[in-house]
Amino acid sequence: MSLDPAAALELGTVRVVGTGLLGASVGLGLSASGARVLLADVSPTALALARDLGAGSPDDGSGERVDLVVVAAPPDVTAAVVLEELKAHPDAVVTDVASVKAGVLAALRTAGADLRNYVGGHPMAGRERSGAVAARGDLFIGRPWVLSPVPEGDPAALSGVRRLALALGAVPVVMPAGEHDEAVALVSHVPQVAASLVAARLRHAPDAAVTLAGQGLRDVTRIAGSDPALWAQILAANAGPVASVLTQLRDDLDRVLEALAALAAESPEPGHVRPGDAIGARGAVARVVADGNLGRERIPGKHGGVPARYAVVTVVIPDEPGSLGRIFADIAAAGTNVEELALEHAPGRAVGLLEISVLPAAHEHLQEALSASGWHVVA
Amino acid sequence: MSLDPAAALELGTVRVVGTGLLGASVGLGLSASGARVLLADVSPTALALARDLGAGSPDDGSGERVDLVVVAAPPDVTAAVVLEELKAHPDAVVTDVASVKAGVLAALRTAGADLRNYVGGHPMAGRERSGAVAARGDLFIGRPWVLSPVPEGDPAALSGVRRLALALGAVPVVMPAGEHDEAVALVSHVPQVAASLVAARLRHAPDAAVTLAGQGLRDVTRIAGSDPALWAQILAANAGPVASVLTQLRDDLDRVLEALAALAAESPEPGHVRPGDAIGARGAVARVVADGNLGRERIPGKHGGVPARYAVVTVVIPDEPGSLGRIFADIAAAGTNVEELALEHAPGRAVGLLEISVLPAAHEHLQEALSASGWHVVA
Repeated sequence: MSLDPAAALELGTVRVVGTGLLGASVGLGLSASGARVLLADVSPTALALARDLGAGSPDDGSGERVDLVVVAAPPDVTAAVVLEELKAHPDAVVTDVASVKAGVLAALRTAGADLRNYVGGHPMAGRERSGAVAARGDLFIGRPWVLSPVPEGDPAALSGVRRLALALGAVPVVMPAGEHDEAVALVSHVPQVAASLVAARLRHAPDAAVTLAGQGLRDVTRIAGSDPALWAQILAANAGPVASVLTQLRDDLDRVLEALAALAAESPEPGHVRPGDAIGARGAVARVVADGNLGRERIPGKHGGVPARYAVVTVVIPDEPGSLGRIFADIAAAGTNVEELALEHAPGRAVGLLEISVLPAAHEHLQEALSASGWHVVA
Repeated sequence: MSLDPAAALELGTVRVVGTGLLGASVGLGLSASGARVLLADVSPTALALARDLGAGSPDDGSGERVDLVVVAAPPDVTAAVVLEELKAHPDAVVTDVASVKAGVLAALRTAGADLRNYVGGHPMAGRERSGAVAARGDLFIGRPWVLSPVPEGDPAALSGVRRLALALGAVPVVMPAGEHDEAVALVSHVPQVAASLVAARLRHAPDAAVTLAGQGLRDVTRIAGSDPALWAQILAANAGPVASVLTQLRDDLDRVLEALAALAAESPEPGHVRPGDAIGARGAVARVVADGNLGRERIPGKHGGVPARYAVVTVVIPDEPGSLGRIFADIAAAGTNVEELALEHAPGRAVGLLEISVLPAAHEHLQEALSASGWHVVA
C-alpha cells in the first residue's frame, strides 16, 4: 500500500519518454524513492513542467546508460516510440503504458523489432484530469498493473518491469496482450459504453422523471461522465474485442425486446389480460436478470478474494458535518469492518441514507450496536 | 426525515389489503404513530404474521367504517382488488402501491369503476428481502412516493393519499399514470436491464479477466443482483414504455457497433494503420460518450437540487476497524460536508481508497486538512 524505495533503487537509471499524467507520475514516484529518472518529451514545455514538478532530470542526450525505459507516449504513437527506444538502448528493458496492448505488439512485430527486452504494460490508474500538472507519485498505489510479456522475451525483462510496478506500489498482474485486451473490453470498455447509452437516454427526459432517479440509476451511470475524446481513442484501439462483447450484449438485448413486444401485445385492450399468451416472454425477461445475477457473482470481492455477498445495514444520517464521523466511530467501536459504502440522498430533504455493506456474520451485531448508540437503522 | 404521527392520526381508520413487505410496512409505520390500522390478506398465515409484528388488527368484517384503503396486493391482481374495495367502501379513499400505474388504471376504466375516490400510488421503496418479516415502519422515510390522480378524482382523495405519504415520512410527487410509467422505465427499468446485460457477459469470463474489475464495473452492475422473478413481473407490466426506451438505446448501440466495425477494419494488417479511413467512426464513438455526459448531468444532485459536479478527494485507508471513524472525524473537524462516498479496494492488498465527493469550493481545503492530519491524500 505504499511506494517501495528499495525496489525503486534496484531499477537503476529509468528513462521516461512522454511526460503526461502517467509518465510524470512514474517519474514522481520513482524520484521520491531516490531513483535516477531521465525525462524525455517531444514538447519542451511539457518536459520543463515535469522537471519543475520533481519528476526527474531532462535527458540531455549525453549517452548516459539507461537500465529501463518507460514509454508513456499517446497510444497512437506508442509502438513507434517503443521501436526507437529498443534500438537506441539495446541493453535496456523497454515497457509502455498504453491501455490496449495487442495493437502495439502487432505493430512492433510487423516492424521486425527485436522484442527480447520488451514487456507490454498497462497500469490501471487514471484521473479525471490529464497532463503533468495532475501527476502524483502515488497514482499507482494499490492499482493493478498488467504486464504482457512476449514469448521470446527475456525473463529478466519481465522481472524488471514487475519491480517497476512494485516500486510504485501497484499490484503486478501477468497476462498476454490479447487476453488483456479481451479482459478490459469486458470489465472496462463495455461497461463504459453501456453506462453512456443509459445516460444518453436521459438527455431529453422530463424534469419530473429525473426527480425519481434513485441510487440504482446513479450507480449505473456514474462513469458516463467520462471524457469523450479519450474514450473514442480507447474504444477505437480495442475495436475488435469491444465489438465482440457488445454484439453478444445486443443479441441478449434483442431477445429482451422481442419478449417485451410479446408482453405489450398480450393485452391489446386494457383489462383484457391473457397472461397465458406470453409465458415464454416472461421467462426470457427473467432469464436475462438471472444471467446478470450469475455474472455479478463473478466480480471479486474485497482484496481480490472470493466473491462475497455482503449484508447491508442502512442508517439515516442527519445532513450535518460530524454525523459521518460519529457513525464510523460507532462502527469501529462495534468492531465491525466496512466492506462497501454508499451514501444516498433523499429528494428534497436534508437527510441521507448510508448503506454500509458488511460480512453477513456481522450484520445483526452492527444493526444492534448502532441502534443502541441511538442511530436510526432503517434496514 | 421521520414519521409524522399527527398526519397519521388525521387519516382516520386505514384498511391495508395485502400484508407483504409494502403493506405490512405501511401498517407498522401508521400503527407506530397510533393510527387505527385494519389488515386483510388472502393468506391467513401472512395476516397473522403481520398482526404479530404489530402492523395492525385483522379486519374482522364487522363493517367498521374505513377512511382510507391501501391496496398492497401483487401487481397482477391490484386492479381487481382496487375495484372490490371501491365497491365495498364507497366513502373511503382507495389507493394502491403497484410499481406500474397505467395498466391498473386502464383495467379499472374498462371495468367501469367509479374513480372519484381513487388515487394511484407508487412508494419508491423496497428491500432485497420480501414479505412481512422484512417489513419496517420506516421503510418509506425520505423516499419519493408518486401519486397519480385521475382527472375525475376528488381533490380530497389526493389530499388523503398525500397525507398517507407524509405520515410515513415519504416525499409525495404528483404525476399522471402514463407519465409515471415512462419515467420509471427511463430511471429504473432500463438501467436494470442494462446492468443485467453487462453483468451477464461476465458469466463465462476468465478468472484473470475479472480480477481486473474496478469500481466502474462494480457501480454499473450493482443492481444486477436483483430478483429475476420480481423483475420479470415489473418489466412485463411496463413492457411498452420499457421497450420504447430500450429500442432507442439499441439504435444508439447499433451505431456504436457500426463504428467499431469500421475501426476494426481500419487496420487490416497490424502496423498498417490508416487513421484517415474511419474518422467518422471515431466521431460516432465519441458522440455516444458525449451524449452520456449530457444525460448524466440531468440527474439531480443531493437533496433533489440542481445537478452539482463534485470535486473528489481520494485518501488511502488502512484496512482496520477505526480508520473510517478517524477520517470522518477529521473531515468533520475540517468543517466539510460529504456529498458522495465510494470505497474502493485494491486487488490482493489490505488497503482501500476512499473517494470523498465534496463541493468544489471545499476541495482544496479538505485535501490540506486531511494531509495535515497525517492521511495519505492520493488525489
